[in-house]
Amino acid sequence: MNKIEHIGIAVKDLEAANEIYKNLLGYEHYKTETVEGEGVVTSFFKCGDSKIELLEATRDDSPIAGFIEKRGEGVHHIAFAVDDIEAEVKRLKESGFRVLNETPKRGADNKLVVFLHPKSSHGVLVELCQEIKINDK
Amino acid sequence: MNKIEHIGIAVKDLEAANEIYKNLLGYEHYKTETVEGEGVVTSFFKCGDSKIELLEATRDDSPIAGFIEKRGEGVHHIAFAVDDIEAEVKRLKESGFRVLNETPKRGADNKLVVFLHPKSSHGVLVELCQEIKINDK
Repeated sequence: MNKIEHIGIAVKDLEAANEIYKNLLGYEHYKTETVEGEGVVTSFFKCGDSKIELLEATRDDSPIAGFIEKRGEGVHHIAFAVDDIEAEVKRLKESGFRVLNETPKRGADNKLVVFLHPKSSHGVLVELCQEIKINDK
Repeated sequence: MNKIEHIGIAVKDLEAANEIYKNLLGYEHYKTETVEGEGVVTSFFKCGDSKIELLEATRDDSPIAGFIEKRGEGVHHIAFAVDDIEAEVKRLKESGFRVLNETPKRGADNKLVVFLHPKSSHGVLVELCQEIKINDK
């Protein structure tokens, strides 16, 4: 794992949360992006070498809607940057981690992502993410 | 806020969690530290420019014991590095954030820390932390 790529925070109202996190961090978010497959609209703030990703559900069956219903707003996942997501998934499975999606899927911010089950990592939903390069599909 | 200094993760069994996070990150933690005032023993892993801090309660009235009882294991707080904690507290209070400890207190890893109420920041317990320099008290 190279670094904490971002921390994903589930919020009910992205516009309100953008204002709060602007006040907290002292600067504006740099982009908003919708990920249809996940049923979320996201907002990103840079923070040093990492990012804060705010996530609002766009439909009732979105994982973010389910998370908020169960646990309330708050930290949803921690994403670690990896160079070779398939090699990392193989390594982690061999170490006993449970993978939620075997095949990397497209996430926000031009990334291929794989999630690990929170039960594997003391209650933390871990995302592995690899930047999609121009010559990747 | 300069960067994400660390992510604090509440765990029931530090030894077991150290093993899991060693397997997750691919390397060992670099230190263990007890913070008597908070009733916690902590373990730190470097991760890029940030850290992962695992926290186990050392007594029943520790905030970490209360957190785990209420919410289970998982992300407890996000800590942001600041240069001048008193100026940041002033700025954030003026922006409407609720501060949990008005006066910075000593945290783990040679830091002065102030916590913001999670209600102020969409369910996230935010820690501000400033490195203690040699010429500070």
